[in-house]
Amino acid sequence: MANNNLLTRINVSPDSDFSIHNIPFGVYTDNEVDHHACSAIGEYIIDLFELESADMLNMNRSVFQEQYLNSFIELGKPETNRVRMKLIEILTDENSELNTNKDFFNKVFKKQSDVKMLMPVRIGDYTDFYSSIDHATNVGTMFRDPANALLPNWKHLPVGYHGRSSSICVSGHSFHRPKGQQKPADAEMPVFGASKLLDIELETAFIIGKKTEMGDHVTTEHAQDHIFGMVLFNDWSARDIQTWEYVPLGPFLAKNFASTMSPWIVTLEALAPFRVKGYDQIPKLLPYLEYTGEKNIDINLNVFLKPQNGKENLICSSNYKYMYYTMEQQLAHHTVNGCNINVGDLMASGTISGPEPHQFGSMLELTWKGTKPLKLSDGTERKFVNDNDTIIIKGFCEKEGKRIGFGECTATLLPAK
Amino acid sequence: MANNNLLTRINVSPDSDFSIHNIPFGVYTDNEVDHHACSAIGEYIIDLFELESADMLNMNRSVFQEQYLNSFIELGKPETNRVRMKLIEILTDENSELNTNKDFFNKVFKKQSDVKMLMPVRIGDYTDFYSSIDHATNVGTMFRDPANALLPNWKHLPVGYHGRSSSICVSGHSFHRPKGQQKPADAEMPVFGASKLLDIELETAFIIGKKTEMGDHVTTEHAQDHIFGMVLFNDWSARDIQTWEYVPLGPFLAKNFASTMSPWIVTLEALAPFRVKGYDQIPKLLPYLEYTGEKNIDINLNVFLKPQNGKENLICSSNYKYMYYTMEQQLAHHTVNGCNINVGDLMASGTISGPEPHQFGSMLELTWKGTKPLKLSDGTERKFVNDNDTIIIKGFCEKEGKRIGFGECTATLLPAK
Repeated sequence: MANNNLLTRINVSPDSDFSIHNIPFGVYTDNEVDHHACSAIGEYIIDLFELESADMLNMNRSVFQEQYLNSFIELGKPETNRVRMKLIEILTDENSELNTNKDFFNKVFKKQSDVKMLMPVRIGDYTDFYSSIDHATNVGTMFRDPANALLPNWKHLPVGYHGRSSSICVSGHSFHRPKGQQKPADAEMPVFGASKLLDIELETAFIIGKKTEMGDHVTTEHAQDHIFGMVLFNDWSARDIQTWEYVPLGPFLAKNFASTMSPWIVTLEALAPFRVKGYDQIPKLLPYLEYTGEKNIDINLNVFLKPQNGKENLICSSNYKYMYYTMEQQLAHHTVNGCNINVGDLMASGTISGPEPHQFGSMLELTWKGTKPLKLSDGTERKFVNDNDTIIIKGFCEKEGKRIGFGECTATLLPAK
Repeated sequence: MANNNLLTRINVSPDSDFSIHNIPFGVYTDNEVDHHACSAIGEYIIDLFELESADMLNMNRSVFQEQYLNSFIELGKPETNRVRMKLIEILTDENSELNTNKDFFNKVFKKQSDVKMLMPVRIGDYTDFYSSIDHATNVGTMFRDPANALLPNWKHLPVGYHGRSSSICVSGHSFHRPKGQQKPADAEMPVFGASKLLDIELETAFIIGKKTEMGDHVTTEHAQDHIFGMVLFNDWSARDIQTWEYVPLGPFLAKNFASTMSPWIVTLEALAPFRVKGYDQIPKLLPYLEYTGEKNIDINLNVFLKPQNGKENLICSSNYKYMYYTMEQQLAHHTVNGCNINVGDLMASGTISGPEPHQFGSMLELTWKGTKPLKLSDGTERKFVNDNDTIIIKGFCEKEGKRIGFGECTATLLPAK
């Protein structure tokens, strides 16, 4: 083997999501392994359980053999950050045993294409916010009143609601088009059948890394201590079911049939260099929602639609920086009433739209309620998602030669059962 | 010891919730035991782990030593029903070793007043329905239009939404009055502070006993195979927070600060003799919501308010039979889109009001938005719940000399932190 460090040997591509600046966490399986915690570098996963078999992380390695990362995350940021920094040290160490022992290298480093990524966390509660002002404005304009698109509460608090944890799947799954009640505008009675207006929602989500007790409040200042990291998220939505059911208690069957998340949790520490300023928040918020510093994040978010046996069509290019409310504000709001949070809880952003039409994060907005169909490269059109279409969300940050990304958040819509 | 069966010896009071016809399941702790599964008879709990130490239930007893009943419930109804019937057999057996061996008796039977009941299940997802027509009509009358109190979808589907699992507590807890944003009608901007309109919601809930996979649908006919049993439930609600936040995505911080459930899961089999016919459902429902037979249940539900150091005041006498939608319909609706369910999921009824004013299941309705305060026995009045008030829900079925009940669902509201 060449006498240089692992990073040189692994030869991370400049456009890889998994540079040395990332070092995310996930869980994988393959023919040999039921479930081991892992990180990623370039095209490889790094098996943390096998790495620790040589005592290289100074851990109780059983935590890396569990089905989910929850126990690892519960060790706390000082410990999980130490592991992340240790991995960077190992990857850049010219004298690492990994560099000289081929068998050990092959145990620890596996091609991502040879393994299957699993759900990284056991999700407790799942909350979805509605924090993109461009999205909320678009929806309000289409369904209510362009002059009063935002409801009165929207600029005073990050509107949110509880969603269904059981049907959140890791990237790579497929699911059937949901059936349910809809009420066509011209019908007197509701009808039952497969949803005709099956939509995507481009979102991100953050994973809770530190629990609280009932009655506790997490301030905007301390919120990041409770956020382990972020994933990409697709909050699939059946618009025709939603329109009929959602009054007065919110979306239910329109959303709980499936959601998709990316398998790699990118830590808040890896994202820190990409923090930027967000929209000005006017009118002034109540003190518990105020914050200081740059708390938005510049994450490029792209959505691709791939017809069966077809090519990927880029249908949306948005950015997390367009969020009106930050994660810190969302968490401060969520807990201001004493609601307790647990490690593994997932809190999603809500659809992330930017101000320009190509930045809209749902088909509803991209096609403006189906009135402006999207033209695909194969000559077909889409108002909403068709059977056997695959939706792929990708996300990455790039700045001053540093690039980190999330991998893919992918799922395929099968025909109704 | 007397030569008769345990039941005679235990001397179950005629007004006990825990007659031989009940045999519910729960989990307890005391000075000696961290957590053992148990049943109840009269004033006693029955320690199932200790009982099985004498091989009396033909089980792998480790399932009774877990923190929650989930693994026991996952064994399936044939097995859990067998255990329930075996317990009845043991209690009525004149030759039981329990009747002759005092030490064994004392290991297995403990006074309920000497133990502390724990959360019986690890709840996965929590869903709350809105299925009482009298409640929905009252709310619609107060907040919208008496002539059109029910929204257009209400009589076509059991409206439901997802709630927060993390803050569901077992009976006997206390919690602090939540704080949050409210917008007084005469104010231009929202204000922040402790909720002034803290309310109860008299509910029951059912616990899922058999999982499904994504894409599966549970029919009304097979729904009861998936329902392990029922509990009492108090869905605490901050009305002032709710009014401001709930548009357009439903209740969030107004409800997720605390919910209370009773510790004993009364099996669907124990409740079977008390099934009755419900309201006529007109207009006719879509076929997937139709059902045959008597699917409501005659469960007397009483709510008591006990001021600090005061007496219990009966403030509501409702009944589960007033539900418009049955549990079977709720579950069929919940899964018709392919939403998967897991053992331990909790699905609550929504506030259960009857047609008469003393049957209303919330303070909002009982005091008609605070315009008709309740007079308590100590001379004080209540528009909503005061600090240090304790709310106690009790529920029981009674028919032809058989009585079964749920025990208590109790919690105390502490002042805001």
